[in-house]
Amino acid sequence: MLVLLTYDVSTDTAAGRRRLARVARKCLSYGQRVQNSVFECNIDWSQFLKLQNELKGMINTETDSLRFYNLGNHYSEKVIHVGAKPSIDLEGDLIL
Amino acid sequence: MLVLLTYDVSTDTAAGRRRLARVARKCLSYGQRVQNSVFECNIDWSQFLKLQNELKGMINTETDSLRFYNLGNHYSEKVIHVGAKPSIDLEGDLIL
Repeated sequence: MLVLLTYDVSTDTAAGRRRLARVARKCLSYGQRVQNSVFECNIDWSQFLKLQNELKGMINTETDSLRFYNLGNHYSEKVIHVGAKPSIDLEGDLIL
Repeated sequence: MLVLLTYDVSTDTAAGRRRLARVARKCLSYGQRVQNSVFECNIDWSQFLKLQNELKGMINTETDSLRFYNLGNHYSEKVIHVGAKPSIDLEGDLIL
């Protein structure tokens, strides 16, 4: 299934930028970065739970927020991209 | 249906910040802001097409990107929020 993850952190501080970089590295081990703070991971339920737990330990829950959206298994028609940086589909095709 | 919209723009420049503010104002007329560059709009297909067209005219397609995700009509169990700034559900309940 496709899990979309959005991360809201202030990058005005060095600590915020470090947290974003750490979250990005973790997400990149599960999927791809489609925008600066938006990640798409094609994972199963056990990976999804693991990813949630790992990320919860990385963020500052007082100031940052994470949102996870489960787009299910049939997601290619649910995504529309406009403008710069089109994303590469996890299974090889372009999602534009 | 719930449409998730993510907007990637550099806010390092005043022009970028103005574009983000314009996109945010437009999205707020259709739904709510759940993170700095993430908006959720509970709209129908005709509103979705109208919103896409309106936003395409506001962004710099050379440097910015928009992604639209259609989460369908049964979305409350598809969304998980962690950390700061929980979002208010469009139909009145909290999505935490």
